[in-house]
Amino acid sequence: MGQIDEPNLMRPMISLPGLNHNSAQIDRMTPMTQKPRALSSNEFSNGTSADTPKLEIQNSGNVLTIHWNDGRNDGTHSRYHAIWLRDNGQDPDTRDPGNGQKLITLQNIPADTAIRSATLNPQSQIEFVFSPDNKHTHIDLNWLKANRYDDVGDPTLLSENIITWGRELAGDLPRTTFQQATEDPKCLIQWLEHIDRRGFAVMSGLPSQSHVNHYPILEAIKLLGYVRETNYGQVFEVRTETNPVNLAYTGQGLQVHTDNPYRDPVPTLQILGCLQNEADGGDSIVVDSFRAVEILRKESPDYFELLSTFHARFDYQQSNDIHLHTSKPMICTPQGQVTGIRFNNRSCHTLRDIPFAKMEDYYRAYRRFGQILEDPQLAVTFKLNPNELFVVDNTRVLHGRTAYSSTGTRWLHGAYADKDSLKSRLSVLRQQYSDSGITAHPNNA
Amino acid sequence: MGQIDEPNLMRPMISLPGLNHNSAQIDRMTPMTQKPRALSSNEFSNGTSADTPKLEIQNSGNVLTIHWNDGRNDGTHSRYHAIWLRDNGQDPDTRDPGNGQKLITLQNIPADTAIRSATLNPQSQIEFVFSPDNKHTHIDLNWLKANRYDDVGDPTLLSENIITWGRELAGDLPRTTFQQATEDPKCLIQWLEHIDRRGFAVMSGLPSQSHVNHYPILEAIKLLGYVRETNYGQVFEVRTETNPVNLAYTGQGLQVHTDNPYRDPVPTLQILGCLQNEADGGDSIVVDSFRAVEILRKESPDYFELLSTFHARFDYQQSNDIHLHTSKPMICTPQGQVTGIRFNNRSCHTLRDIPFAKMEDYYRAYRRFGQILEDPQLAVTFKLNPNELFVVDNTRVLHGRTAYSSTGTRWLHGAYADKDSLKSRLSVLRQQYSDSGITAHPNNA
Repeated sequence: MGQIDEPNLMRPMISLPGLNHNSAQIDRMTPMTQKPRALSSNEFSNGTSADTPKLEIQNSGNVLTIHWNDGRNDGTHSRYHAIWLRDNGQDPDTRDPGNGQKLITLQNIPADTAIRSATLNPQSQIEFVFSPDNKHTHIDLNWLKANRYDDVGDPTLLSENIITWGRELAGDLPRTTFQQATEDPKCLIQWLEHIDRRGFAVMSGLPSQSHVNHYPILEAIKLLGYVRETNYGQVFEVRTETNPVNLAYTGQGLQVHTDNPYRDPVPTLQILGCLQNEADGGDSIVVDSFRAVEILRKESPDYFELLSTFHARFDYQQSNDIHLHTSKPMICTPQGQVTGIRFNNRSCHTLRDIPFAKMEDYYRAYRRFGQILEDPQLAVTFKLNPNELFVVDNTRVLHGRTAYSSTGTRWLHGAYADKDSLKSRLSVLRQQYSDSGITAHPNNA
Repeated sequence: MGQIDEPNLMRPMISLPGLNHNSAQIDRMTPMTQKPRALSSNEFSNGTSADTPKLEIQNSGNVLTIHWNDGRNDGTHSRYHAIWLRDNGQDPDTRDPGNGQKLITLQNIPADTAIRSATLNPQSQIEFVFSPDNKHTHIDLNWLKANRYDDVGDPTLLSENIITWGRELAGDLPRTTFQQATEDPKCLIQWLEHIDRRGFAVMSGLPSQSHVNHYPILEAIKLLGYVRETNYGQVFEVRTETNPVNLAYTGQGLQVHTDNPYRDPVPTLQILGCLQNEADGGDSIVVDSFRAVEILRKESPDYFELLSTFHARFDYQQSNDIHLHTSKPMICTPQGQVTGIRFNNRSCHTLRDIPFAKMEDYYRAYRRFGQILEDPQLAVTFKLNPNELFVVDNTRVLHGRTAYSSTGTRWLHGAYADKDSLKSRLSVLRQQYSDSGITAHPNNA
């Protein structure tokens, strides 16, 4: 049985033509054509040429060291534990040859498993025999190199996938057209990649509402995933009109913010599409909070620490039927890496989870973070035109609106979606079109 | 303007009849009927009776200390910073009298704000004047007591809202009927509370599919929120049939797991409803991972630390169009408190983010956690009958299935939803029926 998750019991098992976790991993199970010489404990494999990797079993079979011998003179090697190797075996009893899913649980592996022998075969696989149960398996050598963990360092502030930006992005907005995205996979890949790595992208040329008989932004959302329905509906309207007889009316700007910080799980994508935008001003603003976090952390590690250590509270109440509330930090740093922020000055509720001794400094940190986020150097301002939309990663990119005056209607549609499907779509498309010259990103995590 | 979030610009502003963040907060703006004597810096208010709280302004107006004088002899008092008090002012320029939302940003408060005077009025509000801008506001005394932060301690392992359980729950399954939940708000509150605090509940007496003309579980989901649509659809089928001529066929059990650990954001609720369940065996199993976490942390803090510090990886691939993947810890402990777990032995992918020095111990911790989760002392086993469903908090409660044999069809429908709406629904219902003898839970976070 391949996939244990309940929804998958009836899914057909379809062979994957080499769809891998990343481009450097190879999961093929190729048959052996030549019987190799077995390597036993504490013996090096000498291989057939000077640059063949050498294998060394150590610690009574607890560790395998691979000396890569890749032409460098620095003795590059990687170590692997027996339990990890056993857990990642690529034989058909351990891993489904069809979909690559694991077929065993950890309880199926003896706690005292050790490497009895390790041999490099001509197909560049290492063939293992494990004690105590004489388990035979193999793992591809290139896969081992790509998945080595002997050099795992401390987490970086941001994932290596992230590209931060400031106002300079206004000169080259990440954008595509609806037609390009639906007809040219390369354009779709690039657009999805902008959202994945920069957290923001624009799309123009949406079909008209009469043409698709429903909200046009839903057509775009189909390209990246599924709508997250909430109390605001599947699609919500944002429509303001100015009174044509009140020339003194000035539409207020909206401070940049993330949406729904009072909701957990927070909607991870927001889509805003324009139907009418006749008013003067009322431009859209987006800000990369990850750029702000870089600045804050460099300027004041203490402020960064406060905003990522202690919880803020967010709260939203409407009429008698909605009361959404969360207790979350403004800067989320599980395991030391920033994964998202929540910033919304007006739904930020009473701060109750910060010790007295830290409260004043917390407010200073909060104030400073807000100032950086509102710095014009970080703001990308653009006019959203009818039949255009923009997508933001709502865990990262703040959005807002400049003030506007004069008469005219400003009419937008909005919806939420999530990044899991976008990342999935991007991974699959990259793999499908990896022969088309589009480089697959090495880090799909 | 009340609510800044884009979706709310067109929401009608409806007065709330005292809907509060928790039952101890009072946000009413009652007019003063008697002019109080102003208290200036470094002066105590003596009040009108021995048990009236006394106010003390300290640190040049930076701190207000309230001596509660609540009959105890231990000098109980709470301290509040000027910036915090100013930020929580209850005047109509700071907080919307209609919906209670904040109308200012932190940038509207001078960084050097200080308390010029603080006076207790006969309505049990403290009236403040702040320098440098002579800002007048007031805050309810009971509200201040309920929201004090002078005694914030270190985070506990689990939120105080959580009630953990083991196999003893089988003797008293948290359950209701569809009719009770739809017709009696008290039953609905209790059922939602089970899910919120225990992470699990059953519902029987679902309407038949022909009766509602769609999936019956969707009727139940309407009571707690919105469906989370994924690549599995809005509703997925789980259907297995045994071959009536193959008496040797044995349906395998499913190890307890959380669903979709490879998805971020993970669906926070899972609903499984039964249409047919004729096979012998095939009972449902649920396990409270938070009980397992309590055991693990007590038995081995080091193992707990490993599983909550380092990322595991989860991965799921299907055909050529799905590749979901995450990099997340098995035990999530942002800010030191457990908020969720991910456990699914078969979609747990290659562990690449754990340093070599920690890898072996990580596997030991992983193995031990799995053993605790599979301990019969934690397993609640029950038969899910036709027209019944159960809901699990998919960030906490694992589910699985016992082995089954013999012939017969087992047919379930499944769907995902999220806890934000459930918590909102529960908060609103508690408030609406707080006069009916149902105690509102003090901690709505």
